[in-house]
Amino acid sequence: MTEAVPDTPHFPLFRPGTDEGWQLVSSERRYAGEHVSVDENRYLTPSRREPVPWMVVERKAAVAVAPVTADGRYVLIAQERLPVRQTLWEFPAGQIDAPLAEITPALIDETVRRELREEAGCVLAEGGTLEPLGWFLPSQGFTNEHVYLFRAEPVCVASRPEADGSEHISDVRLVSPGELRRMIAAHEITTALTLALFARMAAKGSL
Amino acid sequence: MTEAVPDTPHFPLFRPGTDEGWQLVSSERRYAGEHVSVDENRYLTPSRREPVPWMVVERKAAVAVAPVTADGRYVLIAQERLPVRQTLWEFPAGQIDAPLAEITPALIDETVRRELREEAGCVLAEGGTLEPLGWFLPSQGFTNEHVYLFRAEPVCVASRPEADGSEHISDVRLVSPGELRRMIAAHEITTALTLALFARMAAKGSL
Repeated sequence: MTEAVPDTPHFPLFRPGTDEGWQLVSSERRYAGEHVSVDENRYLTPSRREPVPWMVVERKAAVAVAPVTADGRYVLIAQERLPVRQTLWEFPAGQIDAPLAEITPALIDETVRRELREEAGCVLAEGGTLEPLGWFLPSQGFTNEHVYLFRAEPVCVASRPEADGSEHISDVRLVSPGELRRMIAAHEITTALTLALFARMAAKGSL
Repeated sequence: MTEAVPDTPHFPLFRPGTDEGWQLVSSERRYAGEHVSVDENRYLTPSRREPVPWMVVERKAAVAVAPVTADGRYVLIAQERLPVRQTLWEFPAGQIDAPLAEITPALIDETVRRELREEAGCVLAEGGTLEPLGWFLPSQGFTNEHVYLFRAEPVCVASRPEADGSEHISDVRLVSPGELRRMIAAHEITTALTLALFARMAAKGSL
């Protein structure tokens, strides 16, 4: 790494291109939308010193959070997901409303608390912790999207979800760790953000 | 489900919109590229009977495979990933060269064996099994991309990877289940496809 990583409990912040040998040589926007853009980029890589062309879909960073109640149950939401035309069981998640360079630990923290409230009707209990579990890359072959992961414990399920008009949360469900595991094994959970949170928690032994 | 699921060891094939209440009302292509397209779609959903507009990035389906050697070690590859300008430890993966409606179990099978060979220099041993582990959705909020998951066991690591010109595999590594777990907990593995495979295998108790 040639750039200092900020000293933060949300370590490590995602920073592309800081490893040696990487360089973005040129970038031309081919499509500009409100939610996604498509760029035709050229890169130098550690092994390739002639520029390599690549199409990249630019998208805002996001957060995803596994809420855990005081009695050790996980909060799942059922959300209508239009691009795949399915209603899916997931952990709460949402985009960070800022360009990459302006993302701060405080903004990440605020986004996690907002999504807990809006999508699951949860609040972090007094004295509770937001444990950072790093980030993950949904589809590194074509998009720079990255998702910060957290475990929120304990949470209180306080209200109906308040999702905004563009989303629809049709159900909220509390599941034991064993039931979460069963849903993943049985293919009832299919979203990367939920599987990534489970993987990090299982690997760390906190499940 | 209103459509029969094909009788196949790759069950379940991904089919969007077969659950009741889902309908794609209209679709206009806003950007057409070789690798991604962007469509402005309108949908009816189970809870919303007025068309809801949504931007969707269309992308080919893919496969990802966890190769396991006869002595129980997992084969990881280090791959240069341009959109995030990082070299990442991952399981082998690749796109299925067909439109959604033409994807068959045989084509999925062929793609898995090709990626094992090209990306990891592996072949499935005689009598070995390709265990299907369902599929996952990398980023269901904006793309219809879906990735079929497999465990290949046992594999022989037979040759140098033969990745095509557009990719670069810089390293191949065999790791124990404990080391795989450690790399995920330590944030050395960050790709959804690798975390999703780990999650399914851990949930099924095969890790």
